[in-house]
Amino acid sequence: MMSGFAVDRRILDAGEAVASLKLCEARLQDDARWPWIVLVPRKQGARELEHLAPSDRLLLLDELAAAGAAVRAVGAALGRPVEKLNVAAIGNVAPQLHVHVTGRRRDDEAWPDPPWGRPGARRYEPDALAVALEAARGALAGAGVKPQA
Amino acid sequence: MMSGFAVDRRILDAGEAVASLKLCEARLQDDARWPWIVLVPRKQGARELEHLAPSDRLLLLDELAAAGAAVRAVGAALGRPVEKLNVAAIGNVAPQLHVHVTGRRRDDEAWPDPPWGRPGARRYEPDALAVALEAARGALAGAGVKPQA
Repeated sequence: MMSGFAVDRRILDAGEAVASLKLCEARLQDDARWPWIVLVPRKQGARELEHLAPSDRLLLLDELAAAGAAVRAVGAALGRPVEKLNVAAIGNVAPQLHVHVTGRRRDDEAWPDPPWGRPGARRYEPDALAVALEAARGALAGAGVKPQA
Repeated sequence: MMSGFAVDRRILDAGEAVASLKLCEARLQDDARWPWIVLVPRKQGARELEHLAPSDRLLLLDELAAAGAAVRAVGAALGRPVEKLNVAAIGNVAPQLHVHVTGRRRDDEAWPDPPWGRPGARRYEPDALAVALEAARGALAGAGVKPQA
Protein backbone atom coordinates (compact mmCIF):
# COMPACT_ATOMS: atom_id res chain seq x y z
CA MET A 1 0.00 0.00 0.00
CA MET A 2 1.28 3.47 -0.85
CA SER A 3 3.01 5.16 2.07
CA GLY A 4 0.80 7.75 3.71
CA PHE A 5 -2.37 6.44 2.11
CA ALA A 6 -5.37 5.69 4.27
CA VAL A 7 -9.01 5.16 3.38
CA ASP A 8 -11.23 7.96 4.69
CA ARG A 9 -12.90 7.04 7.98
CA ARG A 10 -16.39 7.70 6.58
CA ILE A 11 -15.76 5.23 3.76
CA LEU A 12 -14.36 2.65 6.20
CA ASP A 13 -17.39 3.00 8.45
CA ALA A 14 -19.81 2.44 5.57
CA GLY A 15 -18.66 -1.02 4.58
CA GLU A 16 -16.26 -3.94 4.61
CA ALA A 17 -12.95 -4.63 2.85
CA VAL A 18 -13.24 -7.01 -0.11
CA ALA A 19 -9.97 -6.96 -2.06
CA SER A 20 -6.87 -4.93 -2.78
CA LEU A 21 -6.76 -4.45 -6.54
CA LYS A 22 -3.80 -3.07 -8.47
CA LEU A 23 -5.00 0.50 -8.11
CA CYS A 24 -7.91 0.45 -5.69
CA GLU A 25 -9.14 -0.84 -2.41
CA ALA A 26 -12.47 -2.56 -3.14
CA ARG A 27 -15.06 -2.41 -0.38
CA LEU A 28 -18.60 -3.75 -0.02
CA GLN A 29 -20.99 -1.00 1.03
CA ASP A 30 -22.87 -2.33 4.04
CA ASP A 31 -26.28 -1.36 2.73
CA ALA A 32 -28.61 -4.25 1.96
CA ARG A 33 -30.77 -2.06 -0.29
CA TRP A 34 -28.33 -2.59 -3.18
CA PRO A 35 -25.32 -4.77 -4.06
CA TRP A 36 -22.68 -2.06 -4.02
CA ILE A 37 -18.89 -1.94 -4.33
CA VAL A 38 -16.84 1.17 -3.57
CA LEU A 39 -13.41 1.50 -5.22
CA VAL A 40 -10.85 3.76 -3.54
CA PRO A 41 -7.70 4.43 -5.58
CA ARG A 42 -4.61 4.29 -3.36
CA LYS A 43 -3.50 7.78 -4.40
CA GLN A 44 -2.92 10.12 -1.50
CA GLY A 45 -4.65 13.45 -2.07
CA ALA A 46 -6.67 12.45 -5.16
CA ARG A 47 -10.13 14.01 -5.10
CA GLU A 48 -11.16 14.04 -8.77
CA LEU A 49 -10.82 11.52 -11.62
CA GLU A 50 -8.57 14.04 -13.37
CA HIS A 51 -6.05 13.64 -10.52
CA LEU A 52 -5.26 10.11 -11.75
CA ALA A 53 -2.38 9.64 -14.18
CA PRO A 54 -3.42 8.20 -17.58
CA SER A 55 -2.08 4.74 -16.74
CA ASP A 56 -4.10 4.77 -13.51
CA ARG A 57 -7.20 5.86 -15.39
CA LEU A 58 -6.98 2.73 -17.49
CA LEU A 59 -6.51 0.60 -14.38
CA LEU A 60 -9.51 2.28 -12.81
CA LEU A 61 -11.76 1.40 -15.72
CA ASP A 62 -10.52 -2.19 -15.66
CA GLU A 63 -11.28 -2.33 -11.95
CA LEU A 64 -14.69 -0.74 -12.51
CA ALA A 65 -15.49 -3.59 -14.87
CA ALA A 66 -14.32 -6.10 -12.23
CA ALA A 67 -16.36 -4.31 -9.58
CA GLY A 68 -19.38 -4.52 -11.86
CA ALA A 69 -18.89 -8.28 -12.08
CA ALA A 70 -18.63 -8.42 -8.28
CA VAL A 71 -21.83 -6.43 -7.88
CA ARG A 72 -23.60 -8.82 -10.26
CA ALA A 73 -22.23 -11.77 -8.27
CA VAL A 74 -23.52 -10.31 -4.99
CA GLY A 75 -26.96 -9.73 -6.46
CA ALA A 76 -27.10 -13.27 -7.83
CA ALA A 77 -25.93 -14.78 -4.53
CA LEU A 78 -28.68 -12.92 -2.68
CA GLY A 79 -31.35 -13.99 -5.20
CA ARG A 80 -31.73 -10.48 -6.64
CA PRO A 81 -29.97 -10.47 -10.02
CA VAL A 82 -28.71 -7.06 -11.07
CA GLU A 83 -30.35 -5.53 -14.14
CA LYS A 84 -28.34 -2.29 -14.49
CA LEU A 85 -25.13 -0.91 -13.09
CA ASN A 86 -25.01 2.66 -11.78
CA VAL A 87 -21.52 4.12 -11.45
CA ALA A 88 -20.51 7.44 -9.88
CA ALA A 89 -17.65 9.46 -8.48
CA ILE A 90 -19.26 12.05 -6.21
CA GLY A 91 -17.20 12.83 -3.10
CA ASN A 92 -19.22 15.75 -1.78
CA VAL A 93 -19.24 14.30 1.75
CA ALA A 94 -16.02 12.22 1.81
CA PRO A 95 -13.72 14.12 -0.57
CA GLN A 96 -11.19 11.30 -1.03
CA LEU A 97 -11.59 10.00 -4.58
CA HIS A 98 -13.84 6.95 -4.57
CA VAL A 99 -16.18 5.40 -7.11
CA HIS A 100 -19.52 3.75 -6.42
CA VAL A 101 -20.63 0.72 -8.45
CA THR A 102 -24.21 -0.04 -7.49
CA GLY A 103 -26.48 -2.77 -8.84
CA ARG A 104 -30.02 -1.81 -9.69
CA ARG A 105 -33.29 -3.58 -10.39
CA ARG A 106 -36.51 -2.16 -11.75
CA ASP A 107 -38.22 -3.29 -8.55
CA ASP A 108 -35.77 -1.64 -6.15
CA GLU A 109 -36.98 1.10 -3.84
CA ALA A 110 -35.40 4.01 -5.70
CA TRP A 111 -35.65 2.98 -9.36
CA PRO A 112 -35.21 4.85 -11.72
CA ASP A 113 -33.61 7.50 -9.48
CA PRO A 114 -29.92 7.26 -8.57
CA PRO A 115 -29.20 5.28 -5.39
CA TRP A 116 -26.63 7.58 -3.79
CA GLY A 117 -27.24 10.12 -1.06
CA ARG A 118 -30.52 8.54 -0.07
CA PRO A 119 -31.16 8.20 3.67
CA GLY A 120 -32.24 4.90 5.15
CA ALA A 121 -29.18 2.66 4.67
CA ARG A 122 -29.94 -0.81 5.99
CA ARG A 123 -27.02 -2.85 7.34
CA TYR A 124 -26.90 -6.46 6.15
CA GLU A 125 -27.96 -9.24 8.48
CA PRO A 126 -24.81 -11.21 9.44
CA ASP A 127 -25.64 -14.23 7.26
CA ALA A 128 -26.42 -12.11 4.24
CA LEU A 129 -23.27 -10.04 4.76
CA ALA A 130 -21.18 -13.23 4.75
CA VAL A 131 -22.86 -14.39 1.54
CA ALA A 132 -22.34 -10.99 -0.08
CA LEU A 133 -18.67 -10.78 0.92
CA GLU A 134 -17.97 -14.29 -0.29
CA ALA A 135 -19.60 -13.57 -3.63
CA ALA A 136 -17.74 -10.28 -4.05
CA ARG A 137 -14.37 -11.80 -3.13
CA GLY A 138 -14.94 -14.76 -5.43
CA ALA A 139 -15.79 -12.47 -8.35
CA LEU A 140 -12.74 -10.29 -7.78
CA ALA A 141 -10.47 -13.34 -7.38
CA GLY A 142 -11.84 -14.49 -10.74
CA ALA A 143 -10.94 -11.11 -12.18
CA GLY A 144 -7.30 -11.81 -11.49
CA VAL A 145 -6.86 -9.72 -8.39
CA LYS A 146 -5.91 -10.68 -4.89
CA PRO A 147 -8.81 -10.89 -2.41
CA GLN A 148 -8.15 -9.84 1.16
CA ALA A 149 -8.00 -12.56 3.79
CA MET B 1 -20.00 9.21 -36.99
CA MET B 2 -20.44 5.46 -36.68
CA SER B 3 -23.03 4.06 -39.06
CA GLY B 4 -26.28 3.30 -37.30
CA PHE B 5 -25.43 5.36 -34.25
CA ALA B 6 -27.89 7.95 -33.01
CA VAL B 7 -28.12 9.77 -29.71
CA ASP B 8 -31.20 8.76 -27.71
CA ARG B 9 -34.06 11.20 -28.15
CA ARG B 10 -34.35 11.80 -24.39
CA ILE B 11 -30.70 12.84 -24.25
CA LEU B 12 -31.11 15.08 -27.30
CA ASP B 13 -34.14 16.77 -25.76
CA ALA B 14 -32.30 17.52 -22.53
CA GLY B 15 -29.54 19.67 -23.98
CA GLU B 16 -27.48 21.10 -26.80
CA ALA B 17 -24.61 19.71 -28.90
CA VAL B 18 -21.19 21.04 -27.88
CA ALA B 19 -18.51 19.00 -29.65
CA SER B 20 -17.79 15.68 -31.33
CA LEU B 21 -14.82 14.18 -29.47
CA LYS B 22 -12.87 11.14 -30.63
CA LEU B 23 -15.17 8.73 -28.81
CA CYS B 24 -18.11 10.75 -27.56
CA GLU B 25 -20.67 13.32 -28.48
CA ALA B 26 -20.39 16.06 -25.84
CA ARG B 27 -23.61 17.86 -24.97
CA LEU B 28 -24.49 20.68 -22.58
CA GLN B 29 -27.37 19.71 -20.31
CA ASP B 30 -29.91 22.51 -20.58
CA ASP B 31 -30.38 22.87 -16.85
CA ALA B 32 -29.20 26.14 -15.34
CA ARG B 33 -29.02 24.61 -11.86
CA TRP B 34 -25.58 23.17 -12.65
CA PRO B 35 -22.89 23.42 -15.33
CA TRP B 36 -23.25 19.96 -16.80
CA ILE B 37 -21.81 18.09 -19.75
CA VAL B 38 -23.14 14.73 -20.97
CA LEU B 39 -20.79 12.45 -22.91
CA VAL B 40 -22.36 9.86 -25.22
CA PRO B 41 -19.90 7.31 -26.68
CA ARG B 42 -20.68 6.67 -30.34
CA LYS B 43 -21.00 2.92 -29.79
CA GLN B 44 -24.24 1.48 -31.03
CA GLY B 45 -25.85 -0.73 -28.38
CA ALA B 46 -23.50 0.14 -25.50
CA ARG B 47 -25.39 0.39 -22.22
CA GLU B 48 -22.70 -0.18 -19.58
CA LEU B 49 -19.08 1.01 -19.21
CA GLU B 50 -18.00 -2.62 -19.53
CA HIS B 51 -19.35 -2.63 -23.10
CA LEU B 52 -16.50 -0.33 -24.15
CA ALA B 53 -13.31 -1.89 -25.51
CA PRO B 54 -10.17 -1.15 -23.43
CA SER B 55 -8.91 1.44 -25.93
CA ASP B 56 -12.26 3.21 -25.78
CA ARG B 57 -12.20 3.15 -21.98
CA LEU B 58 -8.99 5.14 -22.02
CA LEU B 59 -10.48 7.60 -24.52
CA LEU B 60 -13.54 7.93 -22.31
CA LEU B 61 -11.47 8.87 -19.28
CA ASP B 62 -9.51 11.40 -21.34
CA GLU B 63 -12.79 12.89 -22.53
CA LEU B 64 -14.16 12.89 -18.99
CA ALA B 65 -11.18 15.04 -17.98
CA ALA B 66 -11.86 17.36 -20.93
CA ALA B 67 -15.55 17.49 -20.01
CA GLY B 68 -14.55 18.38 -16.45
CA ALA B 69 -12.53 21.30 -17.80
CA ALA B 70 -15.53 22.36 -19.89
CA VAL B 71 -17.83 22.21 -16.87
CA ARG B 72 -15.37 24.38 -14.93
CA ALA B 73 -15.25 26.83 -17.84
CA VAL B 74 -19.05 27.06 -17.95
CA GLY B 75 -19.22 27.71 -14.21
CA ALA B 76 -16.54 30.40 -14.42
CA ALA B 77 -18.23 32.07 -17.42
CA LEU B 78 -21.49 32.25 -15.50
CA GLY B 79 -19.82 33.64 -12.36
CA ARG B 80 -20.30 30.45 -10.36
CA PRO B 81 -16.91 28.70 -10.21
CA VAL B 82 -17.13 24.94 -9.78
CA GLU B 83 -15.81 23.51 -6.51
CA LYS B 84 -16.32 19.77 -7.11
CA LEU B 85 -17.05 17.53 -10.07
CA ASN B 86 -19.68 14.84 -9.80
CA VAL B 87 -19.46 12.11 -12.46
CA ALA B 88 -21.91 9.28 -13.13
CA ALA B 89 -23.05 6.67 -15.60
CA ILE B 90 -26.63 5.83 -14.63
CA GLY B 91 -28.88 5.12 -17.62
CA ASN B 92 -31.94 3.91 -15.77
CA VAL B 93 -34.24 6.12 -17.86
CA ALA B 94 -32.29 6.46 -21.14
CA PRO B 95 -30.40 3.16 -21.38
CA GLN B 96 -27.92 4.30 -24.04
CA LEU B 97 -24.51 4.59 -22.36
CA HIS B 98 -23.91 8.20 -21.36
CA VAL B 99 -21.88 9.84 -18.62
CA HIS B 100 -22.82 12.93 -16.64
CA VAL B 101 -20.15 15.44 -15.58
CA THR B 102 -21.78 17.95 -13.29
CA GLY B 103 -20.19 20.92 -11.53
CA ARG B 104 -21.07 21.46 -7.89
CA ARG B 105 -20.79 24.23 -5.33
CA ARG B 106 -21.36 24.08 -1.62
CA ASP B 107 -24.09 26.70 -2.04
CA ASP B 108 -26.01 24.86 -4.76
CA GLU B 109 -29.54 23.71 -4.10
CA ALA B 110 -28.77 20.00 -3.71
CA TRP B 111 -25.36 19.97 -2.03
CA PRO B 112 -24.10 17.53 -0.76
CA ASP B 113 -26.60 15.19 -2.42
CA PRO B 114 -26.04 14.00 -5.98
CA PRO B 115 -27.56 16.25 -8.66
CA TRP B 116 -29.05 13.59 -10.93
CA GLY B 117 -32.67 12.48 -11.02
CA ARG B 118 -33.86 15.58 -9.20
CA PRO B 119 -37.02 17.18 -10.56
CA GLY B 120 -37.14 20.87 -11.31
CA ALA B 121 -34.74 21.28 -14.25
CA ARG B 122 -34.54 24.94 -15.22
CA ARG B 123 -33.79 25.75 -18.87
CA TYR B 124 -31.14 28.42 -19.40
CA GLU B 125 -32.20 31.91 -20.41
CA PRO B 126 -31.09 32.44 -24.05
CA ASP B 127 -28.20 34.78 -23.16
CA ALA B 128 -26.88 32.47 -20.45
CA LEU B 129 -27.20 29.46 -22.75
CA ALA B 130 -25.08 31.23 -25.37
CA VAL B 131 -22.45 32.06 -22.75
CA ALA B 132 -22.45 28.49 -21.46
CA LEU B 133 -22.17 26.96 -24.93
CA GLU B 134 -19.35 29.30 -25.92
CA ALA B 135 -17.44 28.47 -22.75
CA ALA B 136 -17.93 24.73 -23.18
CA ARG B 137 -16.92 24.79 -26.84
CA GLY B 138 -13.87 26.89 -26.07
CA ALA B 139 -12.73 24.53 -23.36
CA LEU B 140 -13.18 21.46 -25.55
CA ALA B 141 -11.42 23.16 -28.47
CA GLY B 142 -8.52 23.80 -26.08
CA ALA B 143 -8.54 20.12 -25.17
CA GLY B 144 -7.59 19.28 -28.76
CA VAL B 145 -10.97 18.17 -29.99
CA LYS B 146 -13.13 19.56 -32.73
CA PRO B 147 -16.07 21.70 -31.55
CA GLN B 148 -19.29 21.51 -33.55
CA ALA B 149 -20.13 24.49 -35.70
